[in-house]
Amino acid sequence: MAKTNPGRFFEDYSVGQVLHHAVPRTVTDGERALYHALYPARHALYSSDEFARNCGLPQSPIDDLAAFHVVFGKTVPDISLNAVANLGYAEGRWLKPVYPGDTLRAESEVIGVKENSNGKTGVVWVRTRGFNQRDEVVIEYVRWVMVRKSNLDAPAPEAVVPDLKKALDPQDLVVPSGLDFSNYNFVQSGEGHRWGDYEIGETIDHVDGVTVEEAEHMLATRLWQNTAKVHFDLTFRPDGRLIYGGHVISMARALSFNGLANAQMIVGLNGGAHANPCFAGDTIKAWSEVLDKAQTTVPGIGAIRLRLVATKGGEPFVLKNEDGRYQPNVLLDLDYWALMPV
Amino acid sequence: MAKTNPGRFFEDYSVGQVLHHAVPRTVTDGERALYHALYPARHALYSSDEFARNCGLPQSPIDDLAAFHVVFGKTVPDISLNAVANLGYAEGRWLKPVYPGDTLRAESEVIGVKENSNGKTGVVWVRTRGFNQRDEVVIEYVRWVMVRKSNLDAPAPEAVVPDLKKALDPQDLVVPSGLDFSNYNFVQSGEGHRWGDYEIGETIDHVDGVTVEEAEHMLATRLWQNTAKVHFDLTFRPDGRLIYGGHVISMARALSFNGLANAQMIVGLNGGAHANPCFAGDTIKAWSEVLDKAQTTVPGIGAIRLRLVATKGGEPFVLKNEDGRYQPNVLLDLDYWALMPV
Amino acid sequence: MAKTNPGRFFEDYSVGQVLHHAVPRTVTDGERALYHALYPARHALYSSDEFARNCGLPQSPIDDLAAFHVVFGKTVPDISLNAVANLGYAEGRWLKPVYPGDTLRAESEVIGVKENSNGKTGVVWVRTRGFNQRDEVVIEYVRWVMVRKSNLDAPAPEAVVPDLKKALDPQDLVVPSGLDFSNYNFVQSGEGHRWGDYEIGETIDHVDGVTVEEAEHMLATRLWQNTAKVHFDLTFRPDGRLIYGGHVISMARALSFNGLANAQMIVGLNGGAHANPCFAGDTIKAWSEVLDKAQTTVPGIGAIRLRLVATKGGEPFVLKNEDGRYQPNVLLDLDYWALMPV
Repeated sequence: MAKTNPGRFFEDYSVGQVLHHAVPRTVTDGERALYHALYPARHALYSSDEFARNCGLPQSPIDDLAAFHVVFGKTVPDISLNAVANLGYAEGRWLKPVYPGDTLRAESEVIGVKENSNGKTGVVWVRTRGFNQRDEVVIEYVRWVMVRKSNLDAPAPEAVVPDLKKALDPQDLVVPSGLDFSNYNFVQSGEGHRWGDYEIGETIDHVDGVTVEEAEHMLATRLWQNTAKVHFDLTFRPDGRLIYGGHVISMARALSFNGLANAQMIVGLNGGAHANPCFAGDTIKAWSEVLDKAQTTVPGIGAIRLRLVATKGGEPFVLKNEDGRYQPNVLLDLDYWALMPV
Repeated sequence: MAKTNPGRFFEDYSVGQVLHHAVPRTVTDGERALYHALYPARHALYSSDEFARNCGLPQSPIDDLAAFHVVFGKTVPDISLNAVANLGYAEGRWLKPVYPGDTLRAESEVIGVKENSNGKTGVVWVRTRGFNQRDEVVIEYVRWVMVRKSNLDAPAPEAVVPDLKKALDPQDLVVPSGLDFSNYNFVQSGEGHRWGDYEIGETIDHVDGVTVEEAEHMLATRLWQNTAKVHFDLTFRPDGRLIYGGHVISMARALSFNGLANAQMIVGLNGGAHANPCFAGDTIKAWSEVLDKAQTTVPGIGAIRLRLVATKGGEPFVLKNEDGRYQPNVLLDLDYWALMPV
Repeated sequence: MAKTNPGRFFEDYSVGQVLHHAVPRTVTDGERALYHALYPARHALYSSDEFARNCGLPQSPIDDLAAFHVVFGKTVPDISLNAVANLGYAEGRWLKPVYPGDTLRAESEVIGVKENSNGKTGVVWVRTRGFNQRDEVVIEYVRWVMVRKSNLDAPAPEAVVPDLKKALDPQDLVVPSGLDFSNYNFVQSGEGHRWGDYEIGETIDHVDGVTVEEAEHMLATRLWQNTAKVHFDLTFRPDGRLIYGGHVISMARALSFNGLANAQMIVGLNGGAHANPCFAGDTIKAWSEVLDKAQTTVPGIGAIRLRLVATKGGEPFVLKNEDGRYQPNVLLDLDYWALMPV
């Protein structure tokens, strides 16, 4: 019974290692439709081929977060099967839209390792890249996780902690080739608010909420071929399956349509914390804060930096307690850049 | 926090107003497959491209009710976000089949307003049209809803109550261009009963039942981008999410395959009442009554007018109490025209 | 109320009869995506068009078991609507891959009947064939079921019990035209184990488990247009909907990726027993035993015969009690041939 994948342990990682993740995946109109059944996703660029063409793209891409989840899912068997915590994201960029028919694969390079003082776990940093069938990088991001050691006698490696940007610079953001908002249709997009209408520091309560069901988050997580047992097996998690953090991200982002309908494309992921675990029965609500705004290299296309917060039940608007820890009903604190018509 | 959509209130509507609904949607094979996963839909014309070609169409259209739901879903943020009741449908027609790859958008014209004597609510009538990417009308229907006033001091508008047909005349029905039942395959369709085999007044108990689950109706409702919170948020509806009425329509219509397998295409919606709310755990059963029959302009294609009743648990076959109100376990009372081989 | 299908009873079957099953079905990328949302399916040949092309196929086929379920679902209204037990499978073969866009239909020939001594039920054997739109047989298998008599006075037919193979001979297996594993990518497939690495008698515990939810098995079963009420109607099955046996097969097969990632294509079904019923809340786990190995006619492609066992909760590895009956938490005991790179 030794043919199954035990996953990697902390001592199995070393800086410079490149992991070629298994099972490439072709994404189609089927994944696109499922994304719209699983999340209240309504951003027009991803909903209508005609709207996308009117914005200079050949058709609607696969939702930006769906593409992220496919790439992320590939990494799970190699990165996080024995992870005890998902610690952070940084320097995430969407470099090329993914279209129905594209086939994605993923690679990760280990860019940092640091054993914890307890000698039982360590932190591993990887830079993951998702490629399409033309070997073009479509997505890249850094993630770091805490991983168990299997052999407690394995010597601690030399600590390497990568120097990561707190946030991407606007000039790091890639505007998809051809994207053009000069004929942007604000009636069809659902709201009239442009880039110029948002102010740094402004917060938006996205009003709506979704109470999550077990069947839904499992369908979503499997769709991305993320098969980590914590998400599926109630004998392993008798108090409730742990919901894949990406499910919360997609739900919150979809809810943010109401108030941010024109924040069309996610192009940068500056950071993110899964502040508390999410379980079936929780009602996900979301609010956003405008953190920054910037021009892009393309006239008419602005970049907006947003904090996206998901909570259970809608409160609080204060994220952390006095001790600096997230309040117990905060689920997600995400920091991203999106493109908007100016 | 003023960038979100509060919805329209009664005083915001006036006769002649045209509302251009947001977020056009491209429907694909993905929506088609999901429709078959969500409902026990088996009508052959929508299941098999070969069967559809044998009936003169280029391929299977998107299910007639799926196309309706997409159009309906677009109207929710503008029409029924503050609605307290969905009062009725009339003069619904399917004018062009919708095919995978088509992009649908919707417009509604306000054709009637009437403030209620309480001064707090009013009834709004709209004629909604769904268009494809060639600006052809694919679906149209009238719907009226009771909507709250926000400003109770707003003066009552002049009452305009549209004159609506109790039922479409057979000559109002549009047979899709090219449709031809001369090579209709009654073995593949699942039943041998033709138009001539049904008698006015005949009732058919469709036998099967489906107990509805929360995850399923949410997947369906989201797929049509209907994001009204009553369908999703248990903190807003602690006693149970209200199931989108269209979910009951589709479930009942799919169940009606057993006995009406050759009532292939819905072409007219004469009226409909969501008699009582439906919740997860209810078991939807259905029965039909033949209300009328008519020739169409195309030889070999007959029209059949059907009452489709959905109930919780299968009873009763008497719809209303002595006081004229629907019995408590009646969910739906729908009146439609379908096309059948003669 | 006589227009609905009552199903066939034992006395309605006779040897030589050919049943043409209703409602052909076009399968698309939508069904493919749903299969990956419903099961943790990761076999690379069905996940990536590029991987499939690298193996000599034009693109990824629809998952082998998805094709089986579509064909099986068509037979339910004619074969098993009044069945009291699904007794077995034999001589199942996958003869042609099914691709998105193909339309499947099914026929069954009655090849055996035998009334039981109680005079109330009998066993019916059918050989079912699934055809694509070019009338090529894509799948065939024998199934036998116990069916009720409706008319207890109907005379017992002459007993005909077909002579079925215990297992397909390797030379009966059909390797899809063009399939070529000479450039097989073991990094992308997820495991390095080849045909030569497996030994007859070896067992593999597939580690992972999935706790099944009601909404999921209903979505799956409906997708195959299997509408038998036992799977859907809680008023008919108050203690819980009976989960379609094929759902357990697909779940177990998908779980077997972990340890059998290179057992890519199922080409033969030697036999199978649904040992105990499965209900929502059960946690499906799986283990496999290597029963046999053989060469195929194509160099580089080996055949491996596997027992696939699904259990509730993972135990036991001993299938049967001393009295020869399956232990109560065994769900499935399946015997199949798959193709593997040598």
